[in-house]
Amino acid sequence: MTARFITIEGLEGAGKSTQLSVLANWVTDHHGSPLVTREPGGTPLAEQIRDLVLGHHTETMDAWTELLLVFAARRQHVTEKIRPALAQSQWVVSDRFTDATYAYQGGGRGIDWARIEALESLVLEGFQPDLTLWLDCPADIGLARARQRGELDRIEQENIDFFERCRAAYERRHREHPDRVIRLDAAQSIEAVSADLVAVLEERCA
Amino acid sequence: MTARFITIEGLEGAGKSTQLSVLANWVTDHHGSPLVTREPGGTPLAEQIRDLVLGHHTETMDAWTELLLVFAARRQHVTEKIRPALAQSQWVVSDRFTDATYAYQGGGRGIDWARIEALESLVLEGFQPDLTLWLDCPADIGLARARQRGELDRIEQENIDFFERCRAAYERRHREHPDRVIRLDAAQSIEAVSADLVAVLEERCA
Repeated sequence: MTARFITIEGLEGAGKSTQLSVLANWVTDHHGSPLVTREPGGTPLAEQIRDLVLGHHTETMDAWTELLLVFAARRQHVTEKIRPALAQSQWVVSDRFTDATYAYQGGGRGIDWARIEALESLVLEGFQPDLTLWLDCPADIGLARARQRGELDRIEQENIDFFERCRAAYERRHREHPDRVIRLDAAQSIEAVSADLVAVLEERCA
Repeated sequence: MTARFITIEGLEGAGKSTQLSVLANWVTDHHGSPLVTREPGGTPLAEQIRDLVLGHHTETMDAWTELLLVFAARRQHVTEKIRPALAQSQWVVSDRFTDATYAYQGGGRGIDWARIEALESLVLEGFQPDLTLWLDCPADIGLARARQRGELDRIEQENIDFFERCRAAYERRHREHPDRVIRLDAAQSIEAVSADLVAVLEERCA
């Protein structure tokens, strides 16, 4: 099977890290050790851009500044790491990718959907994941989990309405790309979510 | 007269800093003290982005990563500083703006002109300088001057062909926007360039 690019998406506290391990283990067992990466970030330069995006600043970051920084990091990530791995037949799994931009900068910040699509098309020229596992849970549950972890970054400190809009945007991505963006009910136990995730992989990627 | 946004453009070593002072002094005398700023940069966050753009990295920066970072800094600069100053009737003078992106990322890096235009339209929605003073000099003269200054940043260390392409791209901007982008012969003495610059200001902005 051709190497695949699989992403995990979801709000803070949806259980992405745990399920990313399950995903990586499944891929390792079936297709060899994958490149495991994350966004924003994934290369030293992209991680520096991540620090700017998530860090606190003395000025208000404009929503489009945020959007452009996220795509700058993504372009670097795709060019330097994701495409080279796939070209060498290594599978790639990433904690977030472009769907998160529609969720956070589209839904959360309110940037017009069509303008994000235009930007995505310019920057990525159609490159997208082969499969996206969306861990869906109510914003308040996820946020409560995330806030137990300690200090909040610039985006985590947004209010519940922001995350409700992000969730609705993920739902829209799921509706618009039903074959690629698969919804998993992340309000279940960790074990039940993992079982659902593995079932999708067995069906789609075995 | 409505407050104007005036930019100075040109290659390294073309004499931008010196002529920026002449420009700022002329504006001060005729229209009050301007906001004097620069690109990439102009706000604390945009200056951090500048550091990423001009700094040296352990990986090769993709041309589109560079382009997106430059526009991220510009969006922040326009939103936080340039537009608010103009809204308060303060004139703005900047060492470089979008024309430099066509020169360096378009001409220098070879990114397709139409794709830069599409990105500019998404990010700036038509916002551009009222007047641009392009200090044109042969790339080798400018480069020789710049290299006397000391350590070179990531872009200054490019070869002469790169800067020849940048110069050709500035020439194209001048041709495409003849009323806005005014060419000044920067191979002349500093005094002669200043005299030409002031003559343009007297005609256009008095």
